[in-house]
Amino acid sequence: MKSVTVFAPASIGNIGPGFDVLGLAITSLGDHVEARRIPSGVRIVEITGLSDSIPYEPESNSAGLAAKEVLALLNVREGVELCIHKSVPSAAGLGSSAASAAGAAFAVNELFQGGLTPNDLIYPATLAEAAVSGGFFADNTAPALLGGATLTRCREPLDVIKLGSIRDLLIVVATPAFELPTKKSRAVLPDYIPLPSFVENMANSCLMVAAFTTGDINLFGRCVNDTVIEPVRAHLIPGFYDVKNAALEAGAFGCSISGGGPSVFAVTDNMSRAHLIGEAMTKAFRDCGVESTMCIAKMETNGARVT
Amino acid sequence: MKSVTVFAPASIGNIGPGFDVLGLAITSLGDHVEARRIPSGVRIVEITGLSDSIPYEPESNSAGLAAKEVLALLNVREGVELCIHKSVPSAAGLGSSAASAAGAAFAVNELFQGGLTPNDLIYPATLAEAAVSGGFFADNTAPALLGGATLTRCREPLDVIKLGSIRDLLIVVATPAFELPTKKSRAVLPDYIPLPSFVENMANSCLMVAAFTTGDINLFGRCVNDTVIEPVRAHLIPGFYDVKNAALEAGAFGCSISGGGPSVFAVTDNMSRAHLIGEAMTKAFRDCGVESTMCIAKMETNGARVT
Repeated sequence: MKSVTVFAPASIGNIGPGFDVLGLAITSLGDHVEARRIPSGVRIVEITGLSDSIPYEPESNSAGLAAKEVLALLNVREGVELCIHKSVPSAAGLGSSAASAAGAAFAVNELFQGGLTPNDLIYPATLAEAAVSGGFFADNTAPALLGGATLTRCREPLDVIKLGSIRDLLIVVATPAFELPTKKSRAVLPDYIPLPSFVENMANSCLMVAAFTTGDINLFGRCVNDTVIEPVRAHLIPGFYDVKNAALEAGAFGCSISGGGPSVFAVTDNMSRAHLIGEAMTKAFRDCGVESTMCIAKMETNGARVT
Repeated sequence: MKSVTVFAPASIGNIGPGFDVLGLAITSLGDHVEARRIPSGVRIVEITGLSDSIPYEPESNSAGLAAKEVLALLNVREGVELCIHKSVPSAAGLGSSAASAAGAAFAVNELFQGGLTPNDLIYPATLAEAAVSGGFFADNTAPALLGGATLTRCREPLDVIKLGSIRDLLIVVATPAFELPTKKSRAVLPDYIPLPSFVENMANSCLMVAAFTTGDINLFGRCVNDTVIEPVRAHLIPGFYDVKNAALEAGAFGCSISGGGPSVFAVTDNMSRAHLIGEAMTKAFRDCGVESTMCIAKMETNGARVT
């Protein structure tokens, strides 16, 4: 095999309460990564699509770093060149660097028939993403590789579990037209949190896990509620509370920040309501002077795959 | 119906990481509560079994208080007298007051054919327990009423979900021969906790929920780990870390404090190992000058019921 092209989906880290623990893959958005054999090294030769500000240097690019990690893991002496086509906006809180890292990791393993499982690839992809995002967490790389919803039980050693999916879940994502690098959204994290907030977020995350493992959208609808991280990140997203209130007034089950933001996601089980929610969210952003784009997605049950 | 006798099981609150959120009912230990109609009021006429220090005044007794709550909820003008037979040691961290409260609530509802469901009875039983324990939390009353493992998503308004059971799970409980009132074990709770501990406990609790909903003991074995509450309560139990280490060295999957303590529980899936673990735990307590009793239980899949 001389070349392989892999698709990896966008994802929503935290899913509200589950900071650095939960994540889910979504349909509609994802990155394509093509890997081709070259004699040695890692080169990025093409970045198309939503490619603004994505560096070509492999050491600064999550796909380049992930390719390097997997080559080393497979003990391969050859190299790869990568073409990346991005449909996940970068620094938007939708797992853009994770999708590229997952795609590259998966592609390199396929290209050299390395025999690693998607689960095996989470560690190198997460290492790669950590180098560009400022934190080692798998809540985007894991769903990008495994699909569905994932749970990171432990980061050292990495222990990730795939939880399943909720078929009827609709996820409305409003992405404002500005970037919020993960490094910046992690810089505002608190060192300590109040005990009651700990209990509340843990309870909501636990119910969310029950919802994913049983596929029960009614359980899920009760638990998109984050009292720990959302309050400290909200000010990084102008108009966040207006957008959230607009989503809830339009009938969303819940609404919170996607990953480190600035994308905001809301959830429902009804397609016509999803459109109303999306319109209400983009209008609320606009009323605050922020342009945004809206996207309606489902849960993506499959992770990275050859196209 | 003039009289009804109800059994309600003992329970393990928190189950390690899930402070104030998770709880599970166990076999082997439980309270019997007999309720008989009387013209008015609530009286406790008999307390047998492990009855030391249990007050007869209905206002200071969780069963008496629960009976009052349910009578009021049913709008019944008659009263009840209660006979309580306790096999759950009190102030041991095994949901003793919750078992009595659950038993009384269930019995009064049955006696007057009130039509309330076990889920409906959690609120009055928890109110009753709160009055004697110093905190409104359902991680003992809910499993005592519903059986299996339970998740308290929200306390106000109360939202409790039954999660299911793990059939092969063996729970080894070592109960030291001293009381630790819940009020005292709650007095040492921290106001704030470090963010990494929040993430770690949430992750372990989430995986525990996945284990209960899927009945997977292998998942469960990885998540009995509490970095938030155990460290601040350990000093209330002389020899705790020796007992925990002894359980782990004897092959337990995990070991932590049961509820507010002083009982310590360990988990395994093998009966002969369970005995070794129990012996190691009581020996470790003894080596620290603390006498204890040991009990091996399974998960109790049924909650309170008429006997």
